[in-house]
Amino acid sequence: MKLDKLVGDRFKEKPSDCVIDSHALMLRGGYMKYVANGIFSSYMPLRRITRKIEQIIREEMDAIDGQEVQFPVVLPASLWEESGRYESVGSELLRFEDRNGSKMVLGMTHEEAAVQLVREYGQSYVKYPFMIYQIQTKFRDEARPRAGLIRVREFTMKDAYSFHTSQQDLEQYYYKCHQAYERIFARAGLPEVISVASDSGMMGGSVSHEFMLLTPVGEDSIVLCNSCDYRANMEAAPSIIENMSVENPKPLEKVYTPNIHTIEEICDFLKTPQEQSCKAVVYQKNADDAYVVLFIRGDLEVNETKLRNVLGEEVHPAVITESCGLHPGYIGPVGLPEHITALFDSSLQGAGDLSCGANEEEYHYTGLCMQRDCPDAVYHDFAKVQEGGICPKCGGHTLTVSRGIEVGNIFQLGTKYTKTMNMQYLDQEGKSHYPIMGCYGIGVGRLAASVCEAHHDDYGPIWPMSIAPWQVHLCCMRADNPEVKAYADGLYQALQQAGLEVLYDDRTVSAGVMFSDADLLGVPLRIIASPRNLKENCCEISTRDKSMQIKVPCDAVVDKAQELVQQMLRS
Amino acid sequence: MKLDKLVGDRFKEKPSDCVIDSHALMLRGGYMKYVANGIFSSYMPLRRITRKIEQIIREEMDAIDGQEVQFPVVLPASLWEESGRYESVGSELLRFEDRNGSKMVLGMTHEEAAVQLVREYGQSYVKYPFMIYQIQTKFRDEARPRAGLIRVREFTMKDAYSFHTSQQDLEQYYYKCHQAYERIFARAGLPEVISVASDSGMMGGSVSHEFMLLTPVGEDSIVLCNSCDYRANMEAAPSIIENMSVENPKPLEKVYTPNIHTIEEICDFLKTPQEQSCKAVVYQKNADDAYVVLFIRGDLEVNETKLRNVLGEEVHPAVITESCGLHPGYIGPVGLPEHITALFDSSLQGAGDLSCGANEEEYHYTGLCMQRDCPDAVYHDFAKVQEGGICPKCGGHTLTVSRGIEVGNIFQLGTKYTKTMNMQYLDQEGKSHYPIMGCYGIGVGRLAASVCEAHHDDYGPIWPMSIAPWQVHLCCMRADNPEVKAYADGLYQALQQAGLEVLYDDRTVSAGVMFSDADLLGVPLRIIASPRNLKENCCEISTRDKSMQIKVPCDAVVDKAQELVQQMLRS
Repeated sequence: MKLDKLVGDRFKEKPSDCVIDSHALMLRGGYMKYVANGIFSSYMPLRRITRKIEQIIREEMDAIDGQEVQFPVVLPASLWEESGRYESVGSELLRFEDRNGSKMVLGMTHEEAAVQLVREYGQSYVKYPFMIYQIQTKFRDEARPRAGLIRVREFTMKDAYSFHTSQQDLEQYYYKCHQAYERIFARAGLPEVISVASDSGMMGGSVSHEFMLLTPVGEDSIVLCNSCDYRANMEAAPSIIENMSVENPKPLEKVYTPNIHTIEEICDFLKTPQEQSCKAVVYQKNADDAYVVLFIRGDLEVNETKLRNVLGEEVHPAVITESCGLHPGYIGPVGLPEHITALFDSSLQGAGDLSCGANEEEYHYTGLCMQRDCPDAVYHDFAKVQEGGICPKCGGHTLTVSRGIEVGNIFQLGTKYTKTMNMQYLDQEGKSHYPIMGCYGIGVGRLAASVCEAHHDDYGPIWPMSIAPWQVHLCCMRADNPEVKAYADGLYQALQQAGLEVLYDDRTVSAGVMFSDADLLGVPLRIIASPRNLKENCCEISTRDKSMQIKVPCDAVVDKAQELVQQMLRS
Repeated sequence: MKLDKLVGDRFKEKPSDCVIDSHALMLRGGYMKYVANGIFSSYMPLRRITRKIEQIIREEMDAIDGQEVQFPVVLPASLWEESGRYESVGSELLRFEDRNGSKMVLGMTHEEAAVQLVREYGQSYVKYPFMIYQIQTKFRDEARPRAGLIRVREFTMKDAYSFHTSQQDLEQYYYKCHQAYERIFARAGLPEVISVASDSGMMGGSVSHEFMLLTPVGEDSIVLCNSCDYRANMEAAPSIIENMSVENPKPLEKVYTPNIHTIEEICDFLKTPQEQSCKAVVYQKNADDAYVVLFIRGDLEVNETKLRNVLGEEVHPAVITESCGLHPGYIGPVGLPEHITALFDSSLQGAGDLSCGANEEEYHYTGLCMQRDCPDAVYHDFAKVQEGGICPKCGGHTLTVSRGIEVGNIFQLGTKYTKTMNMQYLDQEGKSHYPIMGCYGIGVGRLAASVCEAHHDDYGPIWPMSIAPWQVHLCCMRADNPEVKAYADGLYQALQQAGLEVLYDDRTVSAGVMFSDADLLGVPLRIIASPRNLKENCCEISTRDKSMQIKVPCDAVVDKAQELVQQMLRS
């Protein structure tokens, strides 16, 4: 490919709306273009990268006996009604009607389509296990697309679905797929990706893992242990709190606390630490706007995914009205109006000597003893893990919280979809069962952006050889010099004939423009033909990451390039 | 791949709703599954076929300097409003709103997205020409999906867009693309595909060609000349009629014709040939339901695409009401109510001694002379070409009408999209111009089905080696015989190690089941290991098309298979 014919503009200025580097660099380098909120077109360099990623994924899925299939992007709503998700999934599922008024959806994941495809095939135990996958466009009507290709509405995803006759068989396959994912990320240039236990969310099922690239710009919070190998995402990590048992509890006492509304204010006022307060956080259920008050130790935060999982329904932060019976700033567990649901975080279990609202304007209680004053409270884990929290595996106060980008996920789905969609098989004795499913996703564009996020400098991406848009970037300096031009033209042909993917820049532009374009395109190996080099009968070969810069005799350039490309493909 | 693990069911019965063989065979062979009207999922064998077709297309597009990009499936309506197609395209364009109420469409073709992607890039003449293409899912909300993958709603399409600074440059590229298409169809196993001049329809532009597979089950009508190379589709072929000039026209005379409504009836009644009648065909405009009466010689049929092109708007067959002023069965050009639009087909130009309706219940005219009685008539070509019609190229009465499946199309678009979307470039003198576009489409799934339609027998598809799901189908007869099984297992490994794509059937099923499955899967080369063959220390190798069946010594099977595959790939 000749660079002067490459469609797409490259520019220096950082676009104003970019919050992360990969987004800015991929716009600046002519990789993609904004079409609508969370919707992009790809230019050739990005399409070449995503095709290479797709091929790596395909090879690794085939290696674990995956069968590539294709599901539709547009699905009949009836399939999603069978599974119950037509109702249960929020407005990120795009619903519409076709010209005949039939209800349709845009596929955001394809469990239903997978079951529909194999429901008749999988009627006998002898057909199991099997796995089918596709690499296909998905649409998820995100409320807040952001960060370029990290959170988009339309994206290409590899989604795989496995079917089993026993939990044990699923677990074995799940482990195989986990290893395949490790190979995929390593081959794509991200060996540093880690897997963390995760919450299964709307997918159903129990055990699941997310594959995370740790980076401060990630939008997910991940809990890691400093001293053992415990890793989980924030939703899946239990918050473990050791409360001192209270020997001689103080009495419950009402205190006049005018103009004191927040936990900070009441603890300042009482001169007690926040750990000795009981905070109220108010939500409303999406279904009927009923109020839910969650009580939690004053120094902790609520994880709303945990709350949703316990409630089994969607909630949103409350809008408190005058008539609702709640006194904002003064809400507490004692004397809470009966029509309001009260939930209790485990951090309060057994705690005493707490301050809390008195459910009366301008009054708080002190001396709240949970066991004595809230004897009926049932406790659940609603709290976000904090830095220095207790590791559920090794027990040390060794937890840290990091940020990450989720580049893949795997789920043990169980029978959620096969049951609701009535897919059954007969076992050896002729008895009916529901097959057990696993599902496995990787977002192709997000993976490309994550590689860029992990491997770039101020001047552009540094693509790993395995997914680079081209393998070699050939620069002809002073293309107006006929000798240099003739040599570079010949080298371009020779490199291509040697089977290398070459991007050739023979524009008569300054060295500055030439190199800044090359940096933005991020091709891992660069060859420079210039009048000065040619005088010495050699070329300069360097790597995009600046780790190597050598001079190679003209007649050895092709061989050396081939050798380096092979070496970089292996590493 | 082992056949006993291949997901998908194969069966003998022809599904009742299949009107063409490829549809029936691709359902019977476990290639695809119905999901919704005009929407299918693909199983592994079809996905492997479409991927090979995609790769052939990709290579040929790259060879004519195409740059692979990717446009979104979901597009903002605003882009289609810019081009005017949001309004002008009918309900086959699927329109909907996203969660924020923004109007969106599902891409059915991507001219707008292509212009949006390169509008800034292409601001200088030095960037031209260039071509971008994608291979991506499209959605077209067809009123009547039919014939399996031939007319669907969701499909994968290669769509390419070229941009030029002169009509001459476009024409040169158009020709190059025409040749690339010929190579693509030949490589995919359809060298018999022909190109025909076509009507550009909603795409805009003037010159266009369709690539047609001639087959009686095709849904397009194609006009071919017996004696020269003239080829066009029905919409694009002019109907040429030579009317005798009328020397001494008879007078216009009103005739009482009770209970006579059709052309057949009036011509029987008057004992004149249908050529001597003037037929009225009534339409209504979609926009306002206004009536349009098209007069045409009684023996000819109206081509509605020609009608739409002349009118410049959509029409539908009329619903005639009592108050509309028309007398069905008695409509004629003389005395037609003035508020009704009258159109005249060229077949009537200069004709005389015609019968026609008298615009009065139970009366017709005879002796209609167009020049005398309809002096203001303007004539256009609205008629369908008929067998034996006059060739517009060589002038003989040599036209025949055939049926075909359109497997690709190419359009010279001109500046329709660049003008409406205001894409401009500066020429060498600094003057602004609109670039000239071409666009080029191939439906991947329809091409796969067309290959099946052209190459099958009663038992299944006969896939060409270039796009076959696998290259070799290895049958182990009597897999319960340990010796045969051990040999076949080893051969399976050896064939794969030799780089061949092998489907291996080692099920303990009857020869009948084994061969009927093999026929349905249509793999071009078959190797049979059986106890009888092994006794002679050989295997049987045959081709799916039954043209070859040989015995090959065991130690030469791999080499022979490799040789045959290479040979069949070249042919």
